[in-house]
Amino acid sequence: MTPFHFEVLHRSKKSHARVGRIHTPHGIIDTPSFVAVGTNSTIKALDSKTVDSLGLQLMFCNTYHLMLQPGTEVVKAAGGLHTFMNRKLPIITDSGGFQVFSLAYGNVASELKSSGKKSENSSVLKITEEGVLFRSYRDGARVLLTPETSVQAQKDLGADIIIPFDELPPYHIDANALKESFDRTHRWEKRSIEAHRLAPNGQAMYAVIHGGLDFDLRKESFNTLQKLEFDGYAIGGSVGKTKKDLQSLLHNMSSYLPQEHPVHLLGIGDLPSIAGAIPNGIDTFDSSFPTKAARHGLLLKSGGDVRIKNACHEKDQLPIDPECPCYTCQHYSRSYLQHLFKASELTFYTLATIHNIHFMVQLMNSYREQILRDEV
Amino acid sequence: MTPFHFEVLHRSKKSHARVGRIHTPHGIIDTPSFVAVGTNSTIKALDSKTVDSLGLQLMFCNTYHLMLQPGTEVVKAAGGLHTFMNRKLPIITDSGGFQVFSLAYGNVASELKSSGKKSENSSVLKITEEGVLFRSYRDGARVLLTPETSVQAQKDLGADIIIPFDELPPYHIDANALKESFDRTHRWEKRSIEAHRLAPNGQAMYAVIHGGLDFDLRKESFNTLQKLEFDGYAIGGSVGKTKKDLQSLLHNMSSYLPQEHPVHLLGIGDLPSIAGAIPNGIDTFDSSFPTKAARHGLLLKSGGDVRIKNACHEKDQLPIDPECPCYTCQHYSRSYLQHLFKASELTFYTLATIHNIHFMVQLMNSYREQILRDEV
Repeated sequence: MTPFHFEVLHRSKKSHARVGRIHTPHGIIDTPSFVAVGTNSTIKALDSKTVDSLGLQLMFCNTYHLMLQPGTEVVKAAGGLHTFMNRKLPIITDSGGFQVFSLAYGNVASELKSSGKKSENSSVLKITEEGVLFRSYRDGARVLLTPETSVQAQKDLGADIIIPFDELPPYHIDANALKESFDRTHRWEKRSIEAHRLAPNGQAMYAVIHGGLDFDLRKESFNTLQKLEFDGYAIGGSVGKTKKDLQSLLHNMSSYLPQEHPVHLLGIGDLPSIAGAIPNGIDTFDSSFPTKAARHGLLLKSGGDVRIKNACHEKDQLPIDPECPCYTCQHYSRSYLQHLFKASELTFYTLATIHNIHFMVQLMNSYREQILRDEV
Repeated sequence: MTPFHFEVLHRSKKSHARVGRIHTPHGIIDTPSFVAVGTNSTIKALDSKTVDSLGLQLMFCNTYHLMLQPGTEVVKAAGGLHTFMNRKLPIITDSGGFQVFSLAYGNVASELKSSGKKSENSSVLKITEEGVLFRSYRDGARVLLTPETSVQAQKDLGADIIIPFDELPPYHIDANALKESFDRTHRWEKRSIEAHRLAPNGQAMYAVIHGGLDFDLRKESFNTLQKLEFDGYAIGGSVGKTKKDLQSLLHNMSSYLPQEHPVHLLGIGDLPSIAGAIPNGIDTFDSSFPTKAARHGLLLKSGGDVRIKNACHEKDQLPIDPECPCYTCQHYSRSYLQHLFKASELTFYTLATIHNIHFMVQLMNSYREQILRDEV
């Protein structure tokens, strides 16, 4: 089994961008790389063999969802996520923290309205130093998620890369509360890596750097976590309301982000953010944007996305992108795809998702070429 | 272009069952054959290339649905259904009559309760000798469906086999009303084949034999239609409330059904009905049963179907059927499939549909072998 390590092949002369390879027990991830999200151990509308054929090298699964359905013991009984879902290539899981705290505070959009108060119908029962007690949305059972139980769940799932349990502070939070959450998250991350080291099983663990939009806190977070010798770093917590906030933050962080470890940006994968993040040294991005966009009929295309429901595509016999070699573009026209979309046919979701993931894989390939030529 | 014709390879010594080949412009249909239903020009959750790979030789599309969305002019602009959906193998379309009259009288289940009265919220505005005027469920537009417009729609769609416009009488109907409907349906079928013959375009047209459960009317219907020299025969209208009704009817009809023309049973494809129909000389069956069952988690297996949600499959690492060579059984376990089903993941619908269609194709293959050995 190949031990986890990161190899930098080229550093751009123009920016902090780099071309690298993350070696994992299930193969190589060429970076920069887009990471598709398959929350419930499947990319929505695609089976694992199809996903493999698209060249998607890293897939993100959500521990929170898998804990509740089917339960990590079911996945463990199959021999872990790879055998459970029959995926040959690398997988990354998160800690469950993000989802638990999203339930507590609501999503970013609703939270921006609610000033960070706990949502009324929160399933979170208690947050203590130990961890978070919440109710399962499936059967109402009380579930205690702690650094140790999150790591154990991720051991059962057996992904190549795992994430320590962290706290996601709400966006609206005063400085004292933020600092309290910040310190606790580091204690939780320390407990996570200690639990992980009891049985590494070839898995790598990435630290999650916190600190919100406060540059000093971000630096302090990195310094704290660096001492714990994680295998890589993820940028978590709030990264701002706007793309400009994100870019300022990443630009500031690029001065100290580690040269010899992979850096992951959690939950961000829209195209402008990727374009801005790569020159700041980000190696991997997970986002449900391309797959969700596909299901809503937004088909990615360089030179202008295709909104398949638009009237102009009704009798359009061209594929989404005449230049695209993907399965969908090789076999089906915009006219047919528009019909499937309007008729809410499941086949549409499959064909659209294939195209958008293929697009992301090709886009990252193109970024790697540009970095090798020092153009990015 | 191969002209349409039916070739009988073997007639069972034991029954009216026969093994044959229907030759069409888009290839051969080995009979007896199961015909999967792809209402909106797609088998739900499968794209055409995948369906082709399953060896499904004939697919059923619904003219009524395609007239309303995307409109037959859109399909015609693509060059017909085959190019529109990129299907290489044969297609059959119906006339739209069944759907229009289902809207008028409700489906069989609701109709059995309502004694054949028009449903309150019927979209049917008027039924005359000319045809049926109804409202589109999509945009409220008034649509006139007549023998001639139905044939024209089916010309635009360009299926290999088309069906004349007929009237589906309600199950509860007095003898006079039934006879009135019965005579009109034959006049409509005559107008249909006359319209078809103006531009055959290599398409075959099957007569639809009516007469409900009345053996004499069925015989009379066949005699009337036989004079019009259709390319094949479909058994339509009411075939009874029970499987026993159906079997009595088919047994009676088997004495006169044509030896040299293919016979199709409309809308019936559950396994016991198929088992009973084949010895009575039925060659093809269309039904949404296997694909609908798949989406509801009922996976077909000889020796006992698999209800995937059953608790016993939670950690079951076996495929649906260890003997099955289908894509789904070669790659995924019951445990994983149960999880996908419980999580309502679109991937489940695709994998389950692949298995059930593969099962039906293999089942019909097995029937053909049994007939060749005079065992059926």
